[in-house]
Amino acid sequence: MSRGVGTVEKRLNELGFALPQPAAPVAAYVPFVIAGDLLVVSGQLPLGPDGKIDPAHRGKLGGAIFNEAGQAAARVCALNVLAQVKAAIGNLDRVRRVVRLGGFINCVPDFNAVPAIMNGASDVIVKIFGERGKHARSTIGVAQLPLDAAVEVEGMFEIDA
Amino acid sequence: MSRGVGTVEKRLNELGFALPQPAAPVAAYVPFVIAGDLLVVSGQLPLGPDGKIDPAHRGKLGGAIFNEAGQAAARVCALNVLAQVKAAIGNLDRVRRVVRLGGFINCVPDFNAVPAIMNGASDVIVKIFGERGKHARSTIGVAQLPLDAAVEVEGMFEIDA
Amino acid sequence: MSRGVGTVEKRLNELGFALPQPAAPVAAYVPFVIAGDLLVVSGQLPLGPDGKIDPAHRGKLGGAIFNEAGQAAARVCALNVLAQVKAAIGNLDRVRRVVRLGGFINCVPDFNAVPAIMNGASDVIVKIFGERGKHARSTIGVAQLPLDAAVEVEGMFEIDA
Repeated sequence: MSRGVGTVEKRLNELGFALPQPAAPVAAYVPFVIAGDLLVVSGQLPLGPDGKIDPAHRGKLGGAIFNEAGQAAARVCALNVLAQVKAAIGNLDRVRRVVRLGGFINCVPDFNAVPAIMNGASDVIVKIFGERGKHARSTIGVAQLPLDAAVEVEGMFEIDA
Repeated sequence: MSRGVGTVEKRLNELGFALPQPAAPVAAYVPFVIAGDLLVVSGQLPLGPDGKIDPAHRGKLGGAIFNEAGQAAARVCALNVLAQVKAAIGNLDRVRRVVRLGGFINCVPDFNAVPAIMNGASDVIVKIFGERGKHARSTIGVAQLPLDAAVEVEGMFEIDA
Repeated sequence: MSRGVGTVEKRLNELGFALPQPAAPVAAYVPFVIAGDLLVVSGQLPLGPDGKIDPAHRGKLGGAIFNEAGQAAARVCALNVLAQVKAAIGNLDRVRRVVRLGGFINCVPDFNAVPAIMNGASDVIVKIFGERGKHARSTIGVAQLPLDAAVEVEGMFEIDA
């Protein structure tokens, strides 16, 4: 299938989003691996278009940052995941199914609204992909994330080989 | 293979357990996805038969809740995982292998008995499935979980297509 | 393919490393599962040759232990992962691709250098495997790990069946 902007990416754009540049890993690994028809995307941080994390998307939920900012950070993470998917397979239309998102929420120990934060990621994925965007998910609140990011999202996709 | 109560579920019942109703996700995602012969189950909380978390299964290990309660919570999570497996494939006998459980233990920072807590999940899975229930596992202690649950368990299964 | 010391393990030895004995799980599960051409390795702790965790590899990053010790602990975890891979498939040459490493860093809540710690694992894997060692990765800082280990690493590999 050709590389380029397909139906899914058009929908993403119509929803008012844009695919960011796929982020370079912050360390010694690669942003995605394909094994058979599974595509595994490394944990993505809420890096903005300038490749930096907006200060509003740093810090701990239940602490320095508000829930709305956390949800926005999760959304940015999800778009960064999709940027890696496009880098990996050339066209988002080749995604047969979003299999799983893992959501890591940087939070204080008494913050238990982690699913609501992660919905910022899940909602945008389902809006963009529709039925095949409905994914399994695990969300946990963690002690800390790289670069003090508020959220990190990893993904597994089934792709058309 | 027909939907229904197979050998594995009978064994589960003989052991004194019952499959709960599969829980609706607490947010915008689905409880399982099948990709090829892999079944990925979203992180499950220790929801009881009434769809709520027993107060004894809320809070942090090493803090408000005791180890026995934590192990019981892990067991309930595992049964909720199996309820999703049955919802996904109709009959637990179609599980070829329990591939991996991920265990997330809500705990205070100096609580290091997380494997013992997660054994509440692993033990019941191995009892129910026998040899093909022997699974890979990662267990971590986390800062917080959805709904202040004490434990969350996710699963990956190989299934007969 | 025959069991034994292949090209990859020779390279590992030339780099000055040695495969440890594969560790027995610290609880009721198994250290690896093969599903099709995927090999899933349970979270490995930084167990030394004596089967114990060096006190220098216990505790929290940003707390009792220094970054260099954390990186060394991550490296030991990675070698323990490879010991399981060899136990699973007999010869590291049968690894077609290192698909994903999950890195869990035991840290205090304000420690945000978790990727640098995890590089201790990633770097050694890439050194040993070269191109096919380049893996997807998610790294998170967690509240606690089994046996108060500083690091835990899990792995997913694509193997030649």
